Amino acid sequence: MIKTDILIIGAGPTGLFTVFEAGLLKLRCHLIDALPQPGGQCAEIYPKKPIYDIPAFPEVLAGDLVDNLMKQIEPFQPGFTLGERAETIDKDEDGQFIVTTNKGTQHKAPVIAIAGGLGSFEPRKPPIANIADFEDKGVEYVIRDPEVYRNKNVVIAGGGDSALDWSIFLTDVAASVTLIHRRNEFRGALDSVEKVQELKDAGKIKLITPAEVIGLKGDGHISGVTVKRSGEEFDLECDHFVPLFGLAPKLGPMANWGLEIEKNAIKVDNSLDYQTNIPGIYAIGDINTYPGKLKLILCGFHEATLMCQSAYQRIHPGKRYVMKYTTVGGVEGFDGSKKEAPKAVVKAIN
Amino acid sequence: MIKTDILIIGAGPTGLFTVFEAGLLKLRCHLIDALPQPGGQCAEIYPKKPIYDIPAFPEVLAGDLVDNLMKQIEPFQPGFTLGERAETIDKDEDGQFIVTTNKGTQHKAPVIAIAGGLGSFEPRKPPIANIADFEDKGVEYVIRDPEVYRNKNVVIAGGGDSALDWSIFLTDVAASVTLIHRRNEFRGALDSVEKVQELKDAGKIKLITPAEVIGLKGDGHISGVTVKRSGEEFDLECDHFVPLFGLAPKLGPMANWGLEIEKNAIKVDNSLDYQTNIPGIYAIGDINTYPGKLKLILCGFHEATLMCQSAYQRIHPGKRYVMKYTTVGGVEGFDGSKKEAPKAVVKAIN
Repeated sequence: MIKTDILIIGAGPTGLFTVFEAGLLKLRCHLIDALPQPGGQCAEIYPKKPIYDIPAFPEVLAGDLVDNLMKQIEPFQPGFTLGERAETIDKDEDGQFIVTTNKGTQHKAPVIAIAGGLGSFEPRKPPIANIADFEDKGVEYVIRDPEVYRNKNVVIAGGGDSALDWSIFLTDVAASVTLIHRRNEFRGALDSVEKVQELKDAGKIKLITPAEVIGLKGDGHISGVTVKRSGEEFDLECDHFVPLFGLAPKLGPMANWGLEIEKNAIKVDNSLDYQTNIPGIYAIGDINTYPGKLKLILCGFHEATLMCQSAYQRIHPGKRYVMKYTTVGGVEGFDGSKKEAPKAVVKAIN
Repeated sequence: MIKTDILIIGAGPTGLFTVFEAGLLKLRCHLIDALPQPGGQCAEIYPKKPIYDIPAFPEVLAGDLVDNLMKQIEPFQPGFTLGERAETIDKDEDGQFIVTTNKGTQHKAPVIAIAGGLGSFEPRKPPIANIADFEDKGVEYVIRDPEVYRNKNVVIAGGGDSALDWSIFLTDVAASVTLIHRRNEFRGALDSVEKVQELKDAGKIKLITPAEVIGLKGDGHISGVTVKRSGEEFDLECDHFVPLFGLAPKLGPMANWGLEIEKNAIKVDNSLDYQTNIPGIYAIGDINTYPGKLKLILCGFHEATLMCQSAYQRIHPGKRYVMKYTTVGGVEGFDGSKKEAPKAVVKAIN
């Protein structure tokens, strides 16, 4: 059982910054995220894209934003449960919450901050009848560890950046890479499209377009796919089939936690502390809704900050917290680190 | 008469970022500030001090924060009325507001955003009976243009960073620099204290401590000061007397604008759009108050953003604004500039 002060569900920018604001109040945090790395959409969907509306950054790549936030929260030593989805919530006899993931990991905390963005990102699956039978038996919708594909025959399907970039990457790892797409045209960064063309010309990527995978073969583990191109069907042997058709966000199991939901978002009290209808559970960032809500990262930062003050009152009832500006009081990490402004001296001049 | 869409009173971080968010909505802004440069406290009081709680900046100097914001809003070509204090507000027959400064500059806008921080910074004045008679006649509380002091005899009073730093700076400009302080000890950056010691030893700064200026002499323009040291009084000829005793924020004339005030701050509706009790006048950043308010720069950024959406509705009633993420839609400046993420290509691979 992992215990913490604030259990944060979602490790995107808002969830990450919560660790900092909580840390200033000497509260510890642990984050759960369905994705295999912190950063949410910024890290998974568009790490190389610039964002222009983060205050005081005329331009920042989404991936760099995440790196900066990770650096900022480092002194507060957050814990992470990654690649697991928060599944159920219960209340312990002492009034604290227990959140269990789809892999059975249990977390306990007096305060829950749901910073789940648009929800947990679930892969879009191709409509192949028996695909569920082969999941984790040669069919993967997300590439977590490229080493799985070493010296294997891999079929990738898709026409976007993920399909292009992983096809390129795996040519150095896999025994063979076949890329199947329903159109001749690919949509992605120019560099990537040109690189795939080059690797195809060099015989390192086998390209099958316009085509679709319509069936899977195998006994226990996948052994091949059935491809349909211009009305003609044929089989292709392979060890792995990786359809990369993008990720779609889903509110998922949280929809059944008893939280008040409106338009696929969690209603919160924006007139005070971004708390939900369940005391002790807050929702911040893109996942919440209130009158005038804007789904902007900078709004999540503000919501996280006010939410932490309320969490402090909940965890330390009656205790008064006197806010000190970081410029004046510095930042003291749980790791013993201390950052502070150079102090003024008081010194006689003779 | 200066006309704009949103008239922002206060050019600190919150006021500056308002220009960006308004710009995304194609609204133009003009800023008024009593200080001679943009940036508010960050630029005037602690430009060289690090701030640790700006999201995604593990550390940023206050002056750099301002520079970044100025760069971020540049495409939206804000106007500035600097070194003037917003004094009166009136309503024109067309329902728009007219704000006049202490120097008589008039501004007209349908929306006012008060981003005045802790108020306008007013210099703390020493208790010398006739000091008001010599204001702008040799007595200055803020140094705006060092050239005013070229080849003049200058007496500076004070024991903090401003007094130290200007004494150092003016040794290269003025005919003579005398620094008077009521204690032997100075309070400031170690570098500055040591530099003053060095200049004093080299005879370039005349130091009189522990002492106070208790009287001013002159006919029309100042010609000298009366100094008291250890019970003994003596006169000192000079062309300028510059008491640098710090700045204290004052809500000032805005306190009489009919706005609902609570604990020296302006009450706003935080459940919606940070509007004050006067429709069309918003208050954002450190100058406002609401339940749970935190006087943090990052909160001002959020408040500015929501406020701009409300201002848009007010300026364009009934018109629906569809928000586009900057990562998707880019940023189009009023100066014809356009920043946008590299576009994906759609390209066949043959």
